[in-house]
Amino acid sequence: MTTATSPALAAAMQEIAAAVEAELDALLPQPAGGTAWLDEAMRYACLGGGKRLRPFLTVAAADLFGVPRGRSLRAGAAIEMLHCYSLVHDDLPCMDDDDLRRGRPTVHRAFDEAAAVLAGDGLQALAFAVLADPATHPDPAVQADLVAGLARAAGSRGMVGGQAIDLAAEARAAGGRPLNYPEIAELQALKTGALIRFAAEAGAILGQAGPDERAVLRDYAADLGVAFQIADDILDHEGSAAELGKAVGKDAAAGKATFVGLLGPDEARTRAQTLTNAATARLAEFGPAAAILQALAEFVITRRS
Amino acid sequence: MTTATSPALAAAMQEIAAAVEAELDALLPQPAGGTAWLDEAMRYACLGGGKRLRPFLTVAAADLFGVPRGRSLRAGAAIEMLHCYSLVHDDLPCMDDDDLRRGRPTVHRAFDEAAAVLAGDGLQALAFAVLADPATHPDPAVQADLVAGLARAAGSRGMVGGQAIDLAAEARAAGGRPLNYPEIAELQALKTGALIRFAAEAGAILGQAGPDERAVLRDYAADLGVAFQIADDILDHEGSAAELGKAVGKDAAAGKATFVGLLGPDEARTRAQTLTNAATARLAEFGPAAAILQALAEFVITRRS
Repeated sequence: MTTATSPALAAAMQEIAAAVEAELDALLPQPAGGTAWLDEAMRYACLGGGKRLRPFLTVAAADLFGVPRGRSLRAGAAIEMLHCYSLVHDDLPCMDDDDLRRGRPTVHRAFDEAAAVLAGDGLQALAFAVLADPATHPDPAVQADLVAGLARAAGSRGMVGGQAIDLAAEARAAGGRPLNYPEIAELQALKTGALIRFAAEAGAILGQAGPDERAVLRDYAADLGVAFQIADDILDHEGSAAELGKAVGKDAAAGKATFVGLLGPDEARTRAQTLTNAATARLAEFGPAAAILQALAEFVITRRS
Repeated sequence: MTTATSPALAAAMQEIAAAVEAELDALLPQPAGGTAWLDEAMRYACLGGGKRLRPFLTVAAADLFGVPRGRSLRAGAAIEMLHCYSLVHDDLPCMDDDDLRRGRPTVHRAFDEAAAVLAGDGLQALAFAVLADPATHPDPAVQADLVAGLARAAGSRGMVGGQAIDLAAEARAAGGRPLNYPEIAELQALKTGALIRFAAEAGAILGQAGPDERAVLRDYAADLGVAFQIADDILDHEGSAAELGKAVGKDAAAGKATFVGLLGPDEARTRAQTLTNAATARLAEFGPAAAILQALAEFVITRRS
């Protein structure tokens, strides 16, 4: 967040990240009784960091429709729980085998593998519990819409499917051919894109917006999600572990296809800027109220971490 | 199912299990594209066996309220997916480390650990997607109720919490003191009880039954769940691997506290019969329509596998 181009965005990100942190703290189980170690692992996985990009999208999109922050922060926190569970499981030894996340030991290093599996499982369940709760929205149709959207984004035709393609591609790369551009674009659209698209759409669902407005926010987030991933690849290519708080150069070392590896850093940067411009243009119909989401699209490609 | 005491129950179990199998087959993703190996693992985890106790409870309870089978089978299949995911994760090397389940290699043995983690994750998401779908019930309030109930039953104060207590108890037993009776009862109430109680309540939710009827079905299933677990412990104590299709004597070898270990086999049998009688009595208010659920309570303590 140190180089956010817009001071208004930096302030909004800081404010919303703090509110999301407080919301997560309130929603996550307090360590108690025989499940205390599991509760601790769930809290460790979610609290104390991250850009909170997904809840920011939910809250900022919901703001366009005048949704009370109490509701959008709950939905955003649920989506962040889902995201955090995916990081915990992706970091497992049998998956990406990472020791460091957000500058701290990963859950299976700080606790153990069983805690990491169970904490992830518990976080996924809790995310759905929060969305189906009247405190998130009093209308059950909105609750069910949120649940259905998150379940789709998280499932085997969304995030989990993307991780499966990623692992399969890695195995294949070891044997010869890495992914080409359409393949890596599909991988990103599932692995990280699905949840980012839903995060923005969730704001529109909370605002009981029409299908057109829902589609605009999804499409904006689709562009933003690809731009974010390209920027991530560039950071992995160039960054230092200290700035990123995680291992770097690892994707290339693992033989993973990345946007930078496929396009080269210059073309990748141009592509990210084009996507950012497209994302920004999509929001024109919302007028000045969308300035913060437009600034976010610029931020995701200029950030240094 | 070979020694079901009631022929009507045996027929109903066979019929519903076949319908659940067909429903699961239709709801699970067809293997395709880059996610084919994940799709295969999800299908392997769910299809081809099991008593289908939980969906049977959902369907038989829903029958009391005249719910169309098309709806109750979907809800039952969703609950079964949740159950199957929990088995896949529980079997992982970092958890119970089991090689055999329902007479076949466990998912991480038949595929690999990453497939087991991801298939479980994908099944949990799919379970919620199915419940939030209008095809399961057209009223969003019912969908949201089902989602909220499953999320509670599955989460850190339900099934996942029970597994955490179980693992912690095992570690503690290695150091000295195993669980006492209240502790093992609490473990069972979470680890297997929560989902069994919800499976029966889901039938009442689909039938838009009042809170009293929901409570009766929950309480019935609570008794049945404990009786089922005691019977499981007795089978583990006495059974053969061929009959059970999984490793036996393993719980005792792992130093796990079991009902049989705590009560002895005779007292455990008496306790199971008392619970079965209580479960049966609770359903008296539904009249002869509940006969099949009453027969089920008897079945769970007389079954040989």
